[in-house]
Amino acid sequence: MSADRAQAVVALGGGHGLHVSLRALRRLMEDVVLDELVAIVTVADNGGSSGRLRGEFDVLPPGDLRMALAALCGDDEWGQTWAQVLQHRFAGDGEMKGHVVGNLLIVALWEQLGDDVAALEWVGRLLGARGRVLPMALQPLDIVAEVSGLDPARPAQRQEVRGQVEVATTAGTIEEIRLEPPGASASPAALDAIAAADWVVLGPGSWFTSVLPHLLVPELRAALINTSARVLVVLNLTEQEGETNGFGPVDHLAVLRSYAPELRIDTVLADRVSVGDGVDALTEAVAACGARLVLDDVAVAPGDGHHDPVALAAAYDAIMTAPDPRD
Amino acid sequence: MSADRAQAVVALGGGHGLHVSLRALRRLMEDVVLDELVAIVTVADNGGSSGRLRGEFDVLPPGDLRMALAALCGDDEWGQTWAQVLQHRFAGDGEMKGHVVGNLLIVALWEQLGDDVAALEWVGRLLGARGRVLPMALQPLDIVAEVSGLDPARPAQRQEVRGQVEVATTAGTIEEIRLEPPGASASPAALDAIAAADWVVLGPGSWFTSVLPHLLVPELRAALINTSARVLVVLNLTEQEGETNGFGPVDHLAVLRSYAPELRIDTVLADRVSVGDGVDALTEAVAACGARLVLDDVAVAPGDGHHDPVALAAAYDAIMTAPDPRD
Repeated sequence: MSADRAQAVVALGGGHGLHVSLRALRRLMEDVVLDELVAIVTVADNGGSSGRLRGEFDVLPPGDLRMALAALCGDDEWGQTWAQVLQHRFAGDGEMKGHVVGNLLIVALWEQLGDDVAALEWVGRLLGARGRVLPMALQPLDIVAEVSGLDPARPAQRQEVRGQVEVATTAGTIEEIRLEPPGASASPAALDAIAAADWVVLGPGSWFTSVLPHLLVPELRAALINTSARVLVVLNLTEQEGETNGFGPVDHLAVLRSYAPELRIDTVLADRVSVGDGVDALTEAVAACGARLVLDDVAVAPGDGHHDPVALAAAYDAIMTAPDPRD
Repeated sequence: MSADRAQAVVALGGGHGLHVSLRALRRLMEDVVLDELVAIVTVADNGGSSGRLRGEFDVLPPGDLRMALAALCGDDEWGQTWAQVLQHRFAGDGEMKGHVVGNLLIVALWEQLGDDVAALEWVGRLLGARGRVLPMALQPLDIVAEVSGLDPARPAQRQEVRGQVEVATTAGTIEEIRLEPPGASASPAALDAIAAADWVVLGPGSWFTSVLPHLLVPELRAALINTSARVLVVLNLTEQEGETNGFGPVDHLAVLRSYAPELRIDTVLADRVSVGDGVDALTEAVAACGARLVLDDVAVAPGDGHHDPVALAAAYDAIMTAPDPRD
């Protein structure tokens, strides 16, 4: 794709990583670098407000979907106010403690409309959202991990850890993850968006529990492998205590590759300071994928673990408007 | 006021009675009979979803406010859908059971904006509502009743019954009600609306717990007594088990008069079938107030206990567009 027209982008992930990525991409919509933006969001959360609602109503966990929608809200008073209200988390010590208003609103829309995807569009309209938010699959899923190192006496022994929260915070080493039930259907709209995209953005975010799960939904995996879109992998800035203890940039990339060797990665974006003196190893690993490495300053501050949406937007802009070497 | 210009109407009440009255008045806004509509809503509910939220967050009980807002929603798909979602009540057996989504949204707006009245305006904008909804007072209140007949051995003995739910369902006879704390401030916007209104509508609704409480808020009472607006009292169709056992139309009017002898009532609207052969007594009671009696067919069906919003709108229209005998 060349830079002389606006682009269609699909971003895959969940949680805070997807949120910051969407805030960055949303800025590019304002600058007309993008004209279509679709977020495809994990639906395996089992903790907090989402976990409680999922348990009570047997619905998709709404939290990551809500957070993605809020990231895309309009920048006028209307969009900002409703995003703030939908992100409102009840405090106190009562039965509502910890519940997030937008989660409750989404569940009510699901129950009223009987259509998960249409309900999310209604929330998007309420927020004046730019772009769409779709669930990764049409049913709630569970992440199950094979974890080693939980028993110091038998470090190689694997145990099963079940649930996003439990996997994300495991004291052991994640050897493998899978989704249950396997073979869940993807949203047709998500598959169409991937097929039609110019760019697919994977990451940043909790690597095992927000980024990789998309590759474990068979239809989504096939769509990602078959799309003509260029794939941009955005590496995390730091290891994440629990699921990626001791992981550097090369490890993140290696794990991703191990789950989808057929995925053609076009560009890997990493933070210059975070990579540090690992730059040679990363350059080599990226080249081994047939991809291009882009180093940029995308953290809130040098060495900080969080991406800055403005800096990330600038990096996305540069990557997505550069001439396509394939042309 | 003459019929040659649109009118400003203030409706006072709570619960289902106010809801049906507002649905009727809203129709008149479409027909340009009204151009300003303000609902002033009781804030003494202590039951259900409202009672739980009030107890948990020390806020105004949101339920009657929500119901009034929903009655005023836009008649396009947007307004209808959001009204339906805000009225959605969670079922099931979990912690959310019985909570109403709009109540939670209102509480979140209160917490985020820190301004009860502005927050209700935001909900009104969400619903595309015609007209405004204001709380009767700026703090949560409790209804306390002196009730006789609770002890069959001592029928004249009075006992105190506390709380809207408890008063509305008492097995005894309500002798007197008061609000706690006494002397709560009214919303300045509510006082302004009453002062500027062409018509004030009192009732229908739970007489002791939704209609009369407005007369016990001192500033509101003074505004109602001093306004140049014409006062329309809409009588209930039947007695209400608990708070108005054995009450006929004359009794409803007599109780209202006893709480505000200075209130100048212009018109009393009663349902023809409900009044039945009590018409002579009611005519006499209404005349004794210096008011005019209008009998109309305003029930869902003859003898039914619920007002029909379309029939009620027709009755309001006829009353409000008739020439003012004072002109």
